[in-house]
Amino acid sequence: MIRASDSKIDSKFVPTPPRDLPTLLGRPPDGWRARMFDVIFGNDTPAGRRFDIVLVVLILLSILVVILDSVPSIYSEYSGVTSVLEWGFTILFTIEYIARLVCIQRPVRYARSFYGIIDLVSVLPTYLSLLLPGSQVFLDVRILRLLRVFRIFKLTLYIEEYTRLGEALVASRRKIMVFLSVVLMLILILGTVMYVIEGPDNGFTSIPMSMYWATVTITTVGYGDMVPHTPVGKAIASFMVLLGWGILAVPTGIVSAEMTSQKMSRHAPRGTPRQCGACGSGDHDPRAHFCKDCGAPLAPATE
Amino acid sequence: MIRASDSKIDSKFVPTPPRDLPTLLGRPPDGWRARMFDVIFGNDTPAGRRFDIVLVVLILLSILVVILDSVPSIYSEYSGVTSVLEWGFTILFTIEYIARLVCIQRPVRYARSFYGIIDLVSVLPTYLSLLLPGSQVFLDVRILRLLRVFRIFKLTLYIEEYTRLGEALVASRRKIMVFLSVVLMLILILGTVMYVIEGPDNGFTSIPMSMYWATVTITTVGYGDMVPHTPVGKAIASFMVLLGWGILAVPTGIVSAEMTSQKMSRHAPRGTPRQCGACGSGDHDPRAHFCKDCGAPLAPATE
Amino acid sequence: MIRASDSKIDSKFVPTPPRDLPTLLGRPPDGWRARMFDVIFGNDTPAGRRFDIVLVVLILLSILVVILDSVPSIYSEYSGVTSVLEWGFTILFTIEYIARLVCIQRPVRYARSFYGIIDLVSVLPTYLSLLLPGSQVFLDVRILRLLRVFRIFKLTLYIEEYTRLGEALVASRRKIMVFLSVVLMLILILGTVMYVIEGPDNGFTSIPMSMYWATVTITTVGYGDMVPHTPVGKAIASFMVLLGWGILAVPTGIVSAEMTSQKMSRHAPRGTPRQCGACGSGDHDPRAHFCKDCGAPLAPATE
Amino acid sequence: MIRASDSKIDSKFVPTPPRDLPTLLGRPPDGWRARMFDVIFGNDTPAGRRFDIVLVVLILLSILVVILDSVPSIYSEYSGVTSVLEWGFTILFTIEYIARLVCIQRPVRYARSFYGIIDLVSVLPTYLSLLLPGSQVFLDVRILRLLRVFRIFKLTLYIEEYTRLGEALVASRRKIMVFLSVVLMLILILGTVMYVIEGPDNGFTSIPMSMYWATVTITTVGYGDMVPHTPVGKAIASFMVLLGWGILAVPTGIVSAEMTSQKMSRHAPRGTPRQCGACGSGDHDPRAHFCKDCGAPLAPATE
Repeated sequence: MIRASDSKIDSKFVPTPPRDLPTLLGRPPDGWRARMFDVIFGNDTPAGRRFDIVLVVLILLSILVVILDSVPSIYSEYSGVTSVLEWGFTILFTIEYIARLVCIQRPVRYARSFYGIIDLVSVLPTYLSLLLPGSQVFLDVRILRLLRVFRIFKLTLYIEEYTRLGEALVASRRKIMVFLSVVLMLILILGTVMYVIEGPDNGFTSIPMSMYWATVTITTVGYGDMVPHTPVGKAIASFMVLLGWGILAVPTGIVSAEMTSQKMSRHAPRGTPRQCGACGSGDHDPRAHFCKDCGAPLAPATE
Repeated sequence: MIRASDSKIDSKFVPTPPRDLPTLLGRPPDGWRARMFDVIFGNDTPAGRRFDIVLVVLILLSILVVILDSVPSIYSEYSGVTSVLEWGFTILFTIEYIARLVCIQRPVRYARSFYGIIDLVSVLPTYLSLLLPGSQVFLDVRILRLLRVFRIFKLTLYIEEYTRLGEALVASRRKIMVFLSVVLMLILILGTVMYVIEGPDNGFTSIPMSMYWATVTITTVGYGDMVPHTPVGKAIASFMVLLGWGILAVPTGIVSAEMTSQKMSRHAPRGTPRQCGACGSGDHDPRAHFCKDCGAPLAPATE
Repeated sequence: MIRASDSKIDSKFVPTPPRDLPTLLGRPPDGWRARMFDVIFGNDTPAGRRFDIVLVVLILLSILVVILDSVPSIYSEYSGVTSVLEWGFTILFTIEYIARLVCIQRPVRYARSFYGIIDLVSVLPTYLSLLLPGSQVFLDVRILRLLRVFRIFKLTLYIEEYTRLGEALVASRRKIMVFLSVVLMLILILGTVMYVIEGPDNGFTSIPMSMYWATVTITTVGYGDMVPHTPVGKAIASFMVLLGWGILAVPTGIVSAEMTSQKMSRHAPRGTPRQCGACGSGDHDPRAHFCKDCGAPLAPATE
Repeated sequence: MIRASDSKIDSKFVPTPPRDLPTLLGRPPDGWRARMFDVIFGNDTPAGRRFDIVLVVLILLSILVVILDSVPSIYSEYSGVTSVLEWGFTILFTIEYIARLVCIQRPVRYARSFYGIIDLVSVLPTYLSLLLPGSQVFLDVRILRLLRVFRIFKLTLYIEEYTRLGEALVASRRKIMVFLSVVLMLILILGTVMYVIEGPDNGFTSIPMSMYWATVTITTVGYGDMVPHTPVGKAIASFMVLLGWGILAVPTGIVSAEMTSQKMSRHAPRGTPRQCGACGSGDHDPRAHFCKDCGAPLAPATE
């Protein structure tokens, strides 16, 4: 039982292998659809890699166009150009989306997956802008498509780190929830107190406004658009900023402790703990060939 | 004695079991009061759970009403509605408070407990508002009643985390007090220096104002309502912000160290603690072959 | 040699005992000076404790008077009262200072010690205010006399924590110096770049002003009295705030690592590592009486 | 191969010895060039040390002149003096640069090294100012020459810390890249959302402006030059500041964990590393009795 729980802990630190896309989405057995699948979903062949790189460049360019289009001085002069480009990118991505649906056996599974939804949402705003002018700014959501970049460039080490970061946050989620709920209660109560003390004359026009101020204060942002004017209000604000500044130590401590312990665990020997068949002692170096206590040969670690 | 203190340290990491409410508050032996007790204080029966969930919803709704009531545009139109709702919630909570007092054997113990006081304070502002108009904003204090939510939803894992967070802060309290007293001395001295350098013409009208500025600065909030104008003042302010930015590392380090060490202690090999068959002592090295206290042979660790 | 270095590391964590004041300052052998010494410097007798408590209260009151005196509305009405009180406190503290000098054998040693200088500086501003009106605000420096409070109330646990905090900072001093020098170079270079880009028209009137802005920005204070106006300046400012926000992790990491390692070291068994006389194995529990490897009796740990 | 990678990991914590400059740059065998080399590049002889100290002072003075020259009140009165001083420093540093090139065997290697480029860039702005008036403010880059100070004063302990800091950051680079890319995506998406919600009327004139605001907000800087005005915008801003405040825990946790683990590794028992007399392998458990690689008996650890 001890070993079972041990290996459970260990397995947490073993990064999950990249999903087996051909099996998941259903690679067509043969023909042009299979070749298309290899180009679009694969990243082992030169053609697959080239496709991925072109895609990343197009995504970045299309976001750049959206951003530039929002700048008044550029919009007033080049709105024709950016409009054409936006439609061009959207049509390209629409074709790509349809191609993805066509070349797999299980299009519904793809359409309902995280990336499938992102891919759809990345083209919709342009079409929507025919009905709702201005909605094309949401094309920015295309940036999320870049999350694929980790897979595209086979950045497995990055995926591992990404997984570890996520694990540390997941492992701390309960502590963070508790911390956050205490902070939110503080914001509600201190915001109300400041609303009473400062009042509408000093800009604290309602409890929601006061809570906005309390949030901006306790997180040490301090825009300065709302500031206390009464002596008592300043005293409470001083107390709040000291509090917010200090309790920032709490989430930091939580994540630090989680990551340190994760790091330490990885330093510890993994694998199935080996026991010496002759004397029964354990705790052997994973690379040991002989028992350190009695000198008898050890079975290989991978068995 | 050494072992006694040891087990005291260990017990720190064992979460305290939820207080045995029936014993503490005195569940009436039988009759309608006992049934009422099970609904109000219990959370094992369907009725008890339903009561708790309704209570949480009512608390959240009543807070929402208080918040909305403070928004001028809503108040001017719906002040009649919110007033009625506030009185409704207050009367409901008053009935609940009385019911809690009635159905237990030791009402004084409840009335003087943390939750008893919160429950009372949660209804008082509405009654007070008859004498002191405006005091009903303090109904917000009802949010503290939600601390019960941890118990209500049997979120024992959250209670455990909550306890651990508290433990880490309690264990660091002396370090944090020392840190805080040093920071407060810095604020007093640097505030005074800035009062002398900048003077009333630049907005530093008194030492308390300067201390408010020093607090806002050293915590990196920086509202911008008071800023140094003289070159020397700017130099001192630069020094202060660097100092405040840097020493934030101190409380963070304190809490991180505490939490890491707490976490490590829990990670230490527990397995089945081995006991000596001869003298009964525990806490043996997992690799020990003989009892460290009486020298008798120990059974292997894997048994 | 290993053991020697070990005990050196351990001794770092043993708080230094409070200095032996009677020996250091020279307690007079007998007579009224010896009795006065016991009252003023001692804290074992009821009279000594009472003297210390009165002193703490007087210090706090005298600081309160200085702070209140700086508030215009109080000054305009009560300047006579506060002036009298200030002179009263100053004369009391002057008498105390002289008494301290009189009742010890080595007055020069006291006068040149940290507390001796603080005690002198705590009374000078009032006398100076006869020549330089306004200099009495520096009476605030009296707060530093409160550092004595740790000794006064025998808060030895606090002294220990204080020592540990100091140790952690001292142990990290080189890392912190390196970090600070890199940050200062960044402030100089980025400040110069912003001076060139934004120029005097946008408030960046000189390199020192730009460096002040860079400091306020990189530490995430952000008063808002100087902000970039050009697009390039905003881009650089965005980069700087991300940098400053992120590198805050460095000093925090330094102090956290130091404190965690300090904490872990204290958890580890201390003392002379014991070896079994029979089989030579080490690494025994400090409380073990028998060798865990061969069962032979162990010599006591304190030998 | 396993052992090779092991020793590679260990060597990471051994500070690299200062580069053997005479070999790297080619000390001339004899004559005046060799003597010049010892003065300019060496720091063992009194003359070499004196040269280094004079250089540090000159660098600091020349930066001070650049900074003061940018202050309008000083410039208007002393522009003649500062101009002369700037030219003087520049000519001195030019001579030094040429001398460095002359007295070594491999001048190209020096000219293309980090310090060689810094040395050249430190004199160019003054000459450029003949063509481009105002470019002399970039003389500030001279501060980077001070990085040499670590070598000059034989601050090897500082070099070690500097190396460790760098190692911790390098070891965390992937985690930090992942974190940063997620933060940048958040800034793009939340900036776009705020652009849509607040609009040009409230100062969010374009997506780049909104992204600037999002950066300033999520890093808790909060200048206050752009603030949300609509209720929905304030709610989103509140969410963002809480998020930014909280996720600051992530890079801090990364660096803390890295440094703690680095520190622990150095704390781990080293003692005399034992080698197997039979096969020569090292890295044995301090408690091992037999070689884990060949099974031969090991000498006791204390020998």
